[in-house]
Amino acid sequence: MLYHNLSVNDHGHLAIAGMDACELAATYGTPLYVLDEDLVRSKCRTYVQAMRACLPEGSMPLFASKALCFRGIYPVIEEEGMGADVVSAGEIATALSAGFPAERICFHGSNKTDDEIAYGIASGVGCFVVDNLDELRSLSREAQARNVVQRVLLRVTVGLDPHTLAAINTGKVDSQFGVPIETGQALRFVRQALSTPGVEVMGFHSHIGSQIFEATSFCDQVDRLLDFAVAVRDDLGFVANVFNLGGGFAVPYVDGDPNVDIAANIQAIAQHLANGCAQHGYPMPRILMEPGRSIVADAGTTLYTAGRIKTIEGYRSYVMVDGGMTDNPRYALYKSAYTVLNASRMNEPADFACTIAGRCCESGDRIAEDICIARPERGDVLAVLTTGAYNYSMSSNYNRVMRPALVMLHDGEARLAVRRQSIDDLLALEL
Amino acid sequence: MLYHNLSVNDHGHLAIAGMDACELAATYGTPLYVLDEDLVRSKCRTYVQAMRACLPEGSMPLFASKALCFRGIYPVIEEEGMGADVVSAGEIATALSAGFPAERICFHGSNKTDDEIAYGIASGVGCFVVDNLDELRSLSREAQARNVVQRVLLRVTVGLDPHTLAAINTGKVDSQFGVPIETGQALRFVRQALSTPGVEVMGFHSHIGSQIFEATSFCDQVDRLLDFAVAVRDDLGFVANVFNLGGGFAVPYVDGDPNVDIAANIQAIAQHLANGCAQHGYPMPRILMEPGRSIVADAGTTLYTAGRIKTIEGYRSYVMVDGGMTDNPRYALYKSAYTVLNASRMNEPADFACTIAGRCCESGDRIAEDICIARPERGDVLAVLTTGAYNYSMSSNYNRVMRPALVMLHDGEARLAVRRQSIDDLLALEL
Repeated sequence: MLYHNLSVNDHGHLAIAGMDACELAATYGTPLYVLDEDLVRSKCRTYVQAMRACLPEGSMPLFASKALCFRGIYPVIEEEGMGADVVSAGEIATALSAGFPAERICFHGSNKTDDEIAYGIASGVGCFVVDNLDELRSLSREAQARNVVQRVLLRVTVGLDPHTLAAINTGKVDSQFGVPIETGQALRFVRQALSTPGVEVMGFHSHIGSQIFEATSFCDQVDRLLDFAVAVRDDLGFVANVFNLGGGFAVPYVDGDPNVDIAANIQAIAQHLANGCAQHGYPMPRILMEPGRSIVADAGTTLYTAGRIKTIEGYRSYVMVDGGMTDNPRYALYKSAYTVLNASRMNEPADFACTIAGRCCESGDRIAEDICIARPERGDVLAVLTTGAYNYSMSSNYNRVMRPALVMLHDGEARLAVRRQSIDDLLALEL
Repeated sequence: MLYHNLSVNDHGHLAIAGMDACELAATYGTPLYVLDEDLVRSKCRTYVQAMRACLPEGSMPLFASKALCFRGIYPVIEEEGMGADVVSAGEIATALSAGFPAERICFHGSNKTDDEIAYGIASGVGCFVVDNLDELRSLSREAQARNVVQRVLLRVTVGLDPHTLAAINTGKVDSQFGVPIETGQALRFVRQALSTPGVEVMGFHSHIGSQIFEATSFCDQVDRLLDFAVAVRDDLGFVANVFNLGGGFAVPYVDGDPNVDIAANIQAIAQHLANGCAQHGYPMPRILMEPGRSIVADAGTTLYTAGRIKTIEGYRSYVMVDGGMTDNPRYALYKSAYTVLNASRMNEPADFACTIAGRCCESGDRIAEDICIARPERGDVLAVLTTGAYNYSMSSNYNRVMRPALVMLHDGEARLAVRRQSIDDLLALEL
């Protein structure tokens, strides 16, 4: 089994955190997002404890809201001692609506509008990650108008290509995010920021991408960021208190994907940074990290009901589910691989070769291609693993398919955290 | 200018159907979907008139709802004498909520649930397009339980590859849609359907894909469908009254894309079919077509406000807009090309080379790459053309970005048809 929180119960059904997947499907309907809150908490603790153990006081992981933003995630994140990274007024409002402390929010985004900047300041978010010079000017104006000094990090691009998907690679010089070090623009950005009223520069942010398996990419990032910080110190006399290293630890989606040891990686990165700082006589900064996928992905499972099953003789079989690219667009977007289990027949051999197709009127609506599952019958519950990240948050209403409900599992109980969308919810916007 | 309904007004602004794009943006905010209803109507008329002119009585275009499904489109479609093709209970409910006549609805989908089948029958939809044998059984059961005989078309795949994108190619033998002719399964499907109680087979449906420029693809489709119909007649004695040819006429997205002459194409297809029927002594069937993109795509324009503008020295410039993959995921999904205009500076030379990036925290959030527009300043209104199809209908709330408002332009007036989504709309689902 891909994850430790999955098992097979006496009915031969998949159990998620000990709870029968078929019963969850029957109770809440399908498609259904299931989130194992206890697994989320355990991931949070891994980050928090590892960072406390080997990094300066005040170092903290910030949950990357874009991975899974809904009201119910924030109390979990807060209780486990994490902050939150957000990229829009909508994400800020969601966090605040759940009582999340504004001072633990770090506000990202390459194109924050002036209204959003004003909202962020008025809400008291702890830190802005300023993406570019133009934003710096807007932020300064809004902060001065409110007589506040806003703490900021400056986002720089370190010019690294960690060989992840182009769509989620953010570290290259030619990126819409941040200001590149290589061209000399980042240094000018810092110089400008240091003399800009209304902002207090705490340090730097850099992000190299997502779904990265090797710690070496992060060590390369640390090297480049530190070299930059040293150059800034030597040139401008500014010493950064904070390095925000962004996110990016990978999770396994299918058997054979490596399992990243988060604590060991954090320790390796911390050690690497400490060595570098010692070498350059640079005071060790506080470290922020922004895990999203590695906090929630493997805690999420999507349950579908198997619908029509079709064999094109001589070609292949299709098993259609009652969701698809509307609740999980990652195959359509990136051809992402997923592990699919027949949750109703866990003790039967997984020998039925098929493609799992969604219900939209689009050939690209797939969940997994050419996989093997236990031979399904219509009505069986199919479980797609590792859907906690970038599924609910990227879902659409294409073909007027409704957004699924989301239940959270905690201490052996399930509770509805997001109710199933209804057609009336959509029609309410249409005059 | 790509389309006839666009012009430049005395302020040097883009005018859509005579209305100032910058004024629309100021009145309704951005991002904003603008739909030129008069152009939609004119496209509808082109189809209706061309089909009436050269095809048997009862032939009719059905609007492919998936291209743009919202309440306000259905009165337009209805008044212009079209039917509607739907693929979900949500699309049916939307059409019915606007008073669209159920008997003009054709219900598609490869994985209709039993609940949806029951809902479709109970709503009185005129025709089901039955995708597969398993659905046929469910439909028969539900129809008999209600003591009705449901009219149906049987969906067959003709085994054509019209060289469009794999994600939107539906005509190949190996498809999740329909029952293939080549394998002999389609003939068995018809035989079964003819003896199934509760359904009345009217004819066949086939669809070869979307965004197809050449009429020859459709003529090939007609040939194969007719050959199949003749084989069915010879084998089973059944003569089809209806051929539904699906959709697929392309629209130009950028300069240089050919402009498909819809009326001429319909005439060519009709003539081709008439010749084939004469040759085989087959009575000319009524023809249904399912245009979606070619009805609404070029009537749609998305207005954004230019936000941060960033030049990576030696690489390229990015112009960020206040929307992106959330309101238009087609670049992220298919690398689709779009035409972008600086609506605020239509009389200035389009010589600023840039990439238009969205506001999400994802490198793949692009609208257009390496294009030229009039050099923008922050606050300028940018217009992305040809966004009427597969934009609103595929939109998401990724990064908690809200769905834009949609205004319809008719007779020189604008009216709000979809209000802008608010964070409260989203939070209302979250407990």
